Amino acid sequence: MTRVDPARVARVREALVSSLGPDRLRDDAESLARFGHDESGLPDLPPDLVAIPRDALEVETIVRACAAHGVPFIAVGARTGKSGGSLAARGGVAISLEKLDQILSIHPGDLVAVVQPGVRTGDLQRAVEAHGLFYPPDPNSSDTCTLGGNVAENAGGPRALKYGVTRDYVLGLEWVLPGGDRVRVGRRTSKGVAGYDLVGLLVGSEGTLGIATEITLRLIPKPRAVKTALAAFRTVAAAAEAVTRVLTSGTLPRALELLDDVALAAVAGQGVAFPEGAGAVLITELDGSSDDALLAELVEVERIFSATGALETQIAQNESQREALWRVRRLVSPGLRVIKGRKLSEDVVVPRSRIPEAIARFKAAGDAHGLVVATYGHAGDGNLHANVLFDSDADRPKVQAVLDAMMAITLELGGTITGEHGVGLAKLQYLPLEHSKALLSLEKRLRVFFDPQVLANPGKVFSDG
Amino acid sequence: MTRVDPARVARVREALVSSLGPDRLRDDAESLARFGHDESGLPDLPPDLVAIPRDALEVETIVRACAAHGVPFIAVGARTGKSGGSLAARGGVAISLEKLDQILSIHPGDLVAVVQPGVRTGDLQRAVEAHGLFYPPDPNSSDTCTLGGNVAENAGGPRALKYGVTRDYVLGLEWVLPGGDRVRVGRRTSKGVAGYDLVGLLVGSEGTLGIATEITLRLIPKPRAVKTALAAFRTVAAAAEAVTRVLTSGTLPRALELLDDVALAAVAGQGVAFPEGAGAVLITELDGSSDDALLAELVEVERIFSATGALETQIAQNESQREALWRVRRLVSPGLRVIKGRKLSEDVVVPRSRIPEAIARFKAAGDAHGLVVATYGHAGDGNLHANVLFDSDADRPKVQAVLDAMMAITLELGGTITGEHGVGLAKLQYLPLEHSKALLSLEKRLRVFFDPQVLANPGKVFSDG
Repeated sequence: MTRVDPARVARVREALVSSLGPDRLRDDAESLARFGHDESGLPDLPPDLVAIPRDALEVETIVRACAAHGVPFIAVGARTGKSGGSLAARGGVAISLEKLDQILSIHPGDLVAVVQPGVRTGDLQRAVEAHGLFYPPDPNSSDTCTLGGNVAENAGGPRALKYGVTRDYVLGLEWVLPGGDRVRVGRRTSKGVAGYDLVGLLVGSEGTLGIATEITLRLIPKPRAVKTALAAFRTVAAAAEAVTRVLTSGTLPRALELLDDVALAAVAGQGVAFPEGAGAVLITELDGSSDDALLAELVEVERIFSATGALETQIAQNESQREALWRVRRLVSPGLRVIKGRKLSEDVVVPRSRIPEAIARFKAAGDAHGLVVATYGHAGDGNLHANVLFDSDADRPKVQAVLDAMMAITLELGGTITGEHGVGLAKLQYLPLEHSKALLSLEKRLRVFFDPQVLANPGKVFSDG
Repeated sequence: MTRVDPARVARVREALVSSLGPDRLRDDAESLARFGHDESGLPDLPPDLVAIPRDALEVETIVRACAAHGVPFIAVGARTGKSGGSLAARGGVAISLEKLDQILSIHPGDLVAVVQPGVRTGDLQRAVEAHGLFYPPDPNSSDTCTLGGNVAENAGGPRALKYGVTRDYVLGLEWVLPGGDRVRVGRRTSKGVAGYDLVGLLVGSEGTLGIATEITLRLIPKPRAVKTALAAFRTVAAAAEAVTRVLTSGTLPRALELLDDVALAAVAGQGVAFPEGAGAVLITELDGSSDDALLAELVEVERIFSATGALETQIAQNESQREALWRVRRLVSPGLRVIKGRKLSEDVVVPRSRIPEAIARFKAAGDAHGLVVATYGHAGDGNLHANVLFDSDADRPKVQAVLDAMMAITLELGGTITGEHGVGLAKLQYLPLEHSKALLSLEKRLRVFFDPQVLANPGKVFSDG
């Protein structure tokens, strides 16, 4: 991947020093290194310049300067992404949206919030909950990630099962197109079909079609009550069967999380005990209008779990017990790192009915290369975070082979290569396995339609774009 | 609007007779007239030829023939549309999808159904409910409209308040592009972010970006219990305030429908009695896991209604009472026709907090031209069906003036010109009032990107496209 000619970047720098002043720019080694790193586990790829705009007009100015001089630009939020979306694959200018960090308004009567892209997801959640409202998407990184990054990646989280993903909550966008033109797309009302649904296209476009400078979000009433339960099963197959039975019984939990035997072992290593013979765990969370109603519903769920062979179901009786059940889920990732020093976390989705087969075949693919695969994730959605555990970079070729096998298995089962992390750099080589040549060609031409010079986050999503 | 040269249509006809055989084609006067009419109340616009393909390949063949000879084509479902989307604005070939009418599969374990576009929405709903599953979108015409039409228009309905619209349930599409190429977009899993969200762009594109030949739909568990209530208020303002208070109390009903005083009078004329002094009615429906839980929730809602000045709240105690409450809503449209012979039904959306102001100003706009405006609709969404009542075509100029005023008011209040019916032909002149020049230009260029000859449903959405 060729990096941009430094002379071009120098011209952008010069233009921006004169239009915005030098305090908006950073090119010290520490800043460049910081902006070259994210949570993907991929090698660092630093930009040549970091620009820190104060408002949408400055974003526009920076993008126009990049367009004028043919320099790539990458919108950057909190760099919590898992697919390398914010890394500077071809160098250029990292546009950090950290100063566009205001919640502009919350309208309880309209169930709408308007935010800048640099607002942290968790901060918005807390702010709207103070009004009795709820912003459902809850990526694992919600305390650190930003809504702009969530929009770019169409972020999900456990509650997607009942409530959908970021895209389902974005009503409107102020958006800087790759040439620097700023447009407003979408609307402020909860419904609307005027013109094309550009919001649908732009959310999840991973920085390749432009940059959100303002986001209008749909909110919902905050559920009055939440109840959580943890059930242990002998096998992943039994747990997966329980997921299906719950979902066809008329209950839609807001989360249904699965941990397989390796994930359980990792948690057990952190001091949590499970019943003898437990080979899988489901954590389920329901929400609704009253504790009593939820308890009754959870008792029904417990009955389904028992009928499917659950060894034990614990229902959290209070907030601290609830906290303890979710702690099991949070301990998986650090626990796996105790088993092996390194891990590569995948983000595939399979049709729910294929979960047991997927997990078994992922394990077998690991075994074939002498590596352990641990799978956990959002079972209700079929969204599995399969983790390949390894010791050091020397194992990378084997890890890659397991990854290749897992992607092939996923697609064979009718799944998709990424459920919520995005293609970015991490899945470049796999997208052509999922999308037909005709579809890829359409997508790439669409990208060029929006961005004829291919300067908006180049090198992402499409291997040759 | 110039119609296509008949000689070109003759060439398409000839090509299709030879490739598909004459039994796939109709050009008798009765067929052309039938396909020139829909539920929009707009003047009829018949096509020059009706083609009735048997499968996706035949759709492709017809589109290719049209593309080769520069003839417009219009995908046609059940012609229940309200915005003229299926009318042949420039003549050409109406492609009727009536024979692509199979539910291809229902997968309870995966919560997925795969259908052809000609399946009636109500038929799918009943089929999935037999499996304990639920397809929430419920356009008023669900017993006659088709899923292909729902996809083209991004249809909604009362349940959109809790469950969203068609777009929220479309996972994947088999799609014939305007040049005739057939692609699969989207996926079969409930989550997924691989590549661009073309499904989001194509749903609601009103036939201008191509034709769905297969639709993969997301289903949810069928709620076990449903409860319905009707509350009468003195004023629309009080009813609207009640809507807001309910939605900020932690309850998300699946429907919250409003009838204003004129709508009430229309229903009263059909023999339904309301309390003395009633000037507005709310019908609300909740669903959930048990009757008891819902009843408790509904009692809370009743308390909120009382506190906001409700004269009376009736809670349906059984299915026939529930049916009776919904009958009130269904009687509005025929009742209005008793008051005046003709009506033009609008489909605007305003931010919820502006509902009282919108309804008052719509009425005043009617008054200014000596016309009565009745408003009812999906208050929970702010989606108002404002009806201008009139006697005959002689009133059309006044009706148009009221319509112009209503659109201006809607946009001034931060609303949108269409919530669920689409732009079609009916709102052509209003879209430029809502979308900026820059956005319209982007949308029109996008249309040409997909359809360089502008043959897919030309004359719709954009006044000059």
